[in-house]
Amino acid sequence: MALLSIKYSRGNLDILDQLLLPTQSKYIPVTNSEDGWNVIKKMQVRGAPAIAIVGCLSLAVELAEDGEHSTVGDLAHFICDRLQYLVTARPTGVNMGEASKRLTSLVKDMAAESGQTVDTLRERFIKECEDMLEKDIAVNKNIGKYGADHLLTVSKNQPVKVLTHCNTGSLATGGYGTALGVVRALHEREKMSHAYCTETRPYNQGSRLTAYELVHDKIPATLICDSMAALLLEQQDISAIVVGADRVVANGDTANKIGTYQLALVAKHHNVPFYVACPSTSFDPTLASGKEIKIEERASEEMTSVKGVRVAALGINCWNPGFDITPASLITGGVITEFGVFSTGDLKARLADCLKMDS
Amino acid sequence: MALLSIKYSRGNLDILDQLLLPTQSKYIPVTNSEDGWNVIKKMQVRGAPAIAIVGCLSLAVELAEDGEHSTVGDLAHFICDRLQYLVTARPTGVNMGEASKRLTSLVKDMAAESGQTVDTLRERFIKECEDMLEKDIAVNKNIGKYGADHLLTVSKNQPVKVLTHCNTGSLATGGYGTALGVVRALHEREKMSHAYCTETRPYNQGSRLTAYELVHDKIPATLICDSMAALLLEQQDISAIVVGADRVVANGDTANKIGTYQLALVAKHHNVPFYVACPSTSFDPTLASGKEIKIEERASEEMTSVKGVRVAALGINCWNPGFDITPASLITGGVITEFGVFSTGDLKARLADCLKMDS
Repeated sequence: MALLSIKYSRGNLDILDQLLLPTQSKYIPVTNSEDGWNVIKKMQVRGAPAIAIVGCLSLAVELAEDGEHSTVGDLAHFICDRLQYLVTARPTGVNMGEASKRLTSLVKDMAAESGQTVDTLRERFIKECEDMLEKDIAVNKNIGKYGADHLLTVSKNQPVKVLTHCNTGSLATGGYGTALGVVRALHEREKMSHAYCTETRPYNQGSRLTAYELVHDKIPATLICDSMAALLLEQQDISAIVVGADRVVANGDTANKIGTYQLALVAKHHNVPFYVACPSTSFDPTLASGKEIKIEERASEEMTSVKGVRVAALGINCWNPGFDITPASLITGGVITEFGVFSTGDLKARLADCLKMDS
Repeated sequence: MALLSIKYSRGNLDILDQLLLPTQSKYIPVTNSEDGWNVIKKMQVRGAPAIAIVGCLSLAVELAEDGEHSTVGDLAHFICDRLQYLVTARPTGVNMGEASKRLTSLVKDMAAESGQTVDTLRERFIKECEDMLEKDIAVNKNIGKYGADHLLTVSKNQPVKVLTHCNTGSLATGGYGTALGVVRALHEREKMSHAYCTETRPYNQGSRLTAYELVHDKIPATLICDSMAALLLEQQDISAIVVGADRVVANGDTANKIGTYQLALVAKHHNVPFYVACPSTSFDPTLASGKEIKIEERASEEMTSVKGVRVAALGINCWNPGFDITPASLITGGVITEFGVFSTGDLKARLADCLKMDS
C-alpha cells in the first residue's frame, strides 16, 4: 500500500515526522492549529502542497471539537485569525498563503450571508479543508494513471524501468505523489520492472525520502548518485526519466530541483524520453519562457555538512542553486498532468481547454 | 605554494594524514617500512602512485640510518623482504606491486655483480626511491605546463575558468597533480580566473580533498554538486573541463572516476572543450577500446553513510560503480600528457614517438 504521510479522519490528524526519516518512522498527532504551526515551523512536514494541507487540516481538527464560538462573527473571526497565524509558520510556502487567502474570503462571504449559522459555517470550512487533501490525492492518482497509460502504450505493455529525481511522493504532496505517483501506478499494474532514484544532492531528498517511499511500498528500486545517470542510461534499458516540477511556464520550460536540466541532457543523448509530471496548478502561463525565472541560491551549509557532520574543506566557497530550468525542447516525452499527457508545444492550449471543461 | 602531501629529504619522511582531512591538517613522521606499511594500511595516504612512493621512501628512510646489514647479501635480502611486506599493506594498489617487482629485480641484479659493496647498493636503492618522487612531480609539472600553454593559446592569453572532477592533486600523486596540476600552472601564471570543483559523490574526493587543496593554494575556487555542472556551463563562461584518468586505452576511450562520462556529455552539449590530463604511464595500448574495461562496483556503504552517519533510507538497494568510460569522441579538447597535448586520434602514435625519443 502507498505510504501515507498525512493520516486524516474527521477530528483526527497524524503526520509522519519527516525530521526523523529515513531512520525512524513516527507519526505525531496534530490536534489544533498551534500543533499545525509547530510541525510546519520545525519542518516535520515539508513541500508546499503538504504544508498547506496540514496547516488547514490542523484548524479543521480544532474546529471539529469546537464549542467555544457561539456566534457566526466569533467563529469567522477565529478562523481568519488562525489562517493568518498558520501562514507565519513558513511565510515562503506559497500554497499555504493562497489557501489562507481563498478560505478567508470564503468565510467572510459566508459570514455576511443572512441566516448563516455557526454549524453550517464550521461544517463548510471543515469540508473545504478535507477537499484540499482529497483533491490533491485524486489529482495525483490521475497523473499516475495517465502517466502509466502513456508509458505502457509506448512500451507495448511491457514492464518498464524508470529513473526519477528528488522527492515527488507522499512526502511532498497530500499523498501518492506526482512523478512518484506514475511509478506507483505502474507498480500497482505490476509493470514497474525497476525504479531508480537519484540521491538529489545537496539535500538528499532522493536517498532520504524517495528511497524511503520505494522501500515502504516494496517497489523494486535502486539508488544512484546524481553523477551516475549517464552510465545508467548507457548500461540499462531505461524506458523513461520522470521528474516533478516547481513551475511549468507558457512555452513548456520547466523549473525543478537542481540537477533536472542535467538529467534531461543525459536523456536526450541516450534517446530516452524525458517527462515532467505535475498538477495543472503548477502551470504558470503568465511567464513566456524559463528565462524569466530567477534561480534562487541556497545556503552553503546544505553542501558542506550532512546532518551536522562537516564534509567539505573549511573555507571553500560554494554555489548552491536550488533549482534549474529545463528547456521545453529537452522534455521529449511530454508533460503528464491530471488531464492527460501533453507535448510542451500543446500544453498551454490543451490545459486551457481542460480547465474550461472542468469548471 | 602548492600543497605538499609528501615531505621528504634524505633520512626524513612526513606525510599529511588524509584521514584527518579536511578538518585537520597534521603531518605524521614515517621513520621505517613498518610505519610505511601502517600509513598505507590505515589509508592515511591514498592514490596508487602516492602509495608506491610513500612505501618505497619509508624503506629508503629506514636504510639511510642502517648499520645492521654488513654484507651485500644481507642487505639485498632485507630490501627484497621489506618490499614484499610493503605490497601486503594494500595488495590492490597496482603501482606498489610494480615498484616492488622492479626494485627487487634491480637489487638482485646488483647483488650478483662482482665487487658490489653495501654502501653502493644502499645508495643506489635510496636514489631509485627518491627518483620515483622526483620523477612523478616533474611529470606532473610538465602536464601542468603543457595544459596551461594549450588553454591559454585557445583563450588568446585571457584568464580562464576551469571545472574539474574528483581529486587529481597533491593528495593523489607524488605532488602538484595532473588535472589539478593544470589548474595550479594556470594560477602560477595568474591566468586562473576561477576554478570549480565537483563534490564527486559518493566518496566526496572533490569536496574533501580538491577543495582543501584549492583553499590551501589560495586559488579562487567554488565547490558545486555533481548535478550542477550543466547549469554552471549554461550560466558561466567556462573555458574547459579538465579531469584525470585511471586508464586511457588505444583509441582514446578513458576510464576515470564515476561522473566523468556525464560531465563530458554536458560539456559537448555546451560546446565546452573536454580534456583528460594524465601521465603517459596511464596510457594502455593493449586494450583497443573502453568496451574491454570491466567497471568495478564498490560497497553500498559509501553511498548510504557519510563519516558513519546514515543518510539513505534503510533497506534501499544501491548501485555504486567506481568509474565510467568516456568515449574518445567526447574528449573534444584532447589528452594532456607530460609530452604535450594530443587529440585522442593521434595519441597512440604521438606517445609512441615521444617515449622512443625519451628513452
